[in-house]
Amino acid sequence: MESAIPAYLETMRTRHKRVPDDYEPPYPSFVARYKPAVSRVVMAYFGVQYRGETPLAVLTEIAGLLAGEDGPSHWDRAHYVDQSGYETIVTVAYWGDVARFDAWFAPAREAWTGKARDGIGTFIEVLRPTVARHETLFSSPDRPEGVAVIAEGMSGEVQEHAYWGGMRDRIPLSQTDAMAPGGAPELIRDGARLRVTAHDNLCLIRSGQDWSDTESSERKLYLDDVEPVLREGMDFLRDDGLGIGCYANRYMHVLAADGSASEKSYGQSWWKSLAALERWAESHPTHVKIFGAAMKYLSTLGPSAKLRLYHEVTVAAADEQFFEYRNCHPKTGMLAAVETVSA
Amino acid sequence: MESAIPAYLETMRTRHKRVPDDYEPPYPSFVARYKPAVSRVVMAYFGVQYRGETPLAVLTEIAGLLAGEDGPSHWDRAHYVDQSGYETIVTVAYWGDVARFDAWFAPAREAWTGKARDGIGTFIEVLRPTVARHETLFSSPDRPEGVAVIAEGMSGEVQEHAYWGGMRDRIPLSQTDAMAPGGAPELIRDGARLRVTAHDNLCLIRSGQDWSDTESSERKLYLDDVEPVLREGMDFLRDDGLGIGCYANRYMHVLAADGSASEKSYGQSWWKSLAALERWAESHPTHVKIFGAAMKYLSTLGPSAKLRLYHEVTVAAADEQFFEYRNCHPKTGMLAAVETVSA
Repeated sequence: MESAIPAYLETMRTRHKRVPDDYEPPYPSFVARYKPAVSRVVMAYFGVQYRGETPLAVLTEIAGLLAGEDGPSHWDRAHYVDQSGYETIVTVAYWGDVARFDAWFAPAREAWTGKARDGIGTFIEVLRPTVARHETLFSSPDRPEGVAVIAEGMSGEVQEHAYWGGMRDRIPLSQTDAMAPGGAPELIRDGARLRVTAHDNLCLIRSGQDWSDTESSERKLYLDDVEPVLREGMDFLRDDGLGIGCYANRYMHVLAADGSASEKSYGQSWWKSLAALERWAESHPTHVKIFGAAMKYLSTLGPSAKLRLYHEVTVAAADEQFFEYRNCHPKTGMLAAVETVSA
Repeated sequence: MESAIPAYLETMRTRHKRVPDDYEPPYPSFVARYKPAVSRVVMAYFGVQYRGETPLAVLTEIAGLLAGEDGPSHWDRAHYVDQSGYETIVTVAYWGDVARFDAWFAPAREAWTGKARDGIGTFIEVLRPTVARHETLFSSPDRPEGVAVIAEGMSGEVQEHAYWGGMRDRIPLSQTDAMAPGGAPELIRDGARLRVTAHDNLCLIRSGQDWSDTESSERKLYLDDVEPVLREGMDFLRDDGLGIGCYANRYMHVLAADGSASEKSYGQSWWKSLAALERWAESHPTHVKIFGAAMKYLSTLGPSAKLRLYHEVTVAAADEQFFEYRNCHPKTGMLAAVETVSA
């Protein structure tokens, strides 16, 4: 067993882990391991918002930008219908070299949010955290998703999971910092572009499930008993999350390379703080139901379960964030956090 | 809102609370407040183990002892049938003045475990923790139970509750100490008396429910939907708790003054550590089910719920404990923790 915090990010603690040193998790989990030379990762969400026909040309455009020089090491794409009935396709790109991202970003940004598109909104949401402000968790070590695809590999079994507080304990910065939020989101109007500056220690989670390997009764159990409860929780966060510190939530269906729906999904949400995310996960009725359904599923199936689960969580400093929206409705992403200011 | 830790027990922290200073619990809870002069409390469990007829004379005997000089400020009584089919009635007494307990205890102990009783076992389980090693929690401030009856009164609404880790954060010692367990329980044979010396930071919880004020549909919901799930969890701890650090568990039905069953119950259990209790409460399927049932109950009823909930938790130093059993079967109380040594 190893710590989720790699040895080179261990520091003299001023804050304790939530579990004793002899804690043994009841089942295995794994984390992404970057090369020690990777000091930051970049996760960039490029959204297109529309009604009706899928704007294939726009999707081709961003794919072309991502394929250019200094483009990301990996990207994937997902679809959802938001609370206002708009369809959204988000192309999510990951870099392990922030200098390459910086070289790539300025012209790509101009191309993506610098021009008007008839009936189509575009947005960019970027975090570029130091690795000390970021953690991942995987139920299996053999199929990375999201940011983990750009990692060097997976850890062995880690200690800090399967208890409330494990998420925080896996973030290296938690050794010395409570990661309290500082300030409030503000809107900046730049012509047709709307930018949001959020605040210190804004939190992002991408939490995914992959049921492509499940068969017969396990598949039925996931689709009939777990997915509807998960959807209900995702809907709550999307529609009523603001009151508990969730600025925005998207329950996304991952798209295959040909644009068809795959058998993977993820929830992606922006939070005022890691603490707010912890409180929802630990005690809100909607997540208690999700947790209960997942527990029942996993205890029914035991180690034979073929469902794959993962997440990635970042607590970003104020200067590690970028949010820009063009021609999007006012409840899109982080715009929802500043709507009253904007009104 | 106030801290569960009274001002006179606040110390310079070396360990952090699990929630930020601006945390606001979603519903009110209260804790017992002792007079600052109370440095220790004593909680003493006097058990009688039998089959068949209730040994009224023995119960009268302990009641007589408790009524003597320097007797407890409060006592109550409860009944259960244990895993070996023995009936047990435990008379639980509380002192707020350890000098009075000390003056009272020696002859009472002689009377209770110093003599043979035909077909009847007796036992004594005592903790005498400093108040810094102890916490309580009540859903309503107007009906103290257990140790809280000897307190001066109840707090106002406290901050440290309704999140995992609140129990630990309410114990004043948690400001500076991880309360890790040290050592293993050992058996001491003293003629017919069997004593157990446990170890540093042994943990005791008494966790109770009072449905006497519930009516019609609320009563039905508690008895049909919550109680069976609670019972299942209590049975798990009783029968299979050892593997997760629960030495012993009793799911007790409180007896009214006339010996009849009241509409109150509590679970009382001995744990290797506070951490082991935390792990069970937070992630074991049996308690996740209890938590889920309670959440559903409380969210269905809202503030109109008449069910009362409370608990008291102690993490005792090695020299604050006393366990003695006479003519009890080998799985009684803390004997279960040393059974293999005794065999």
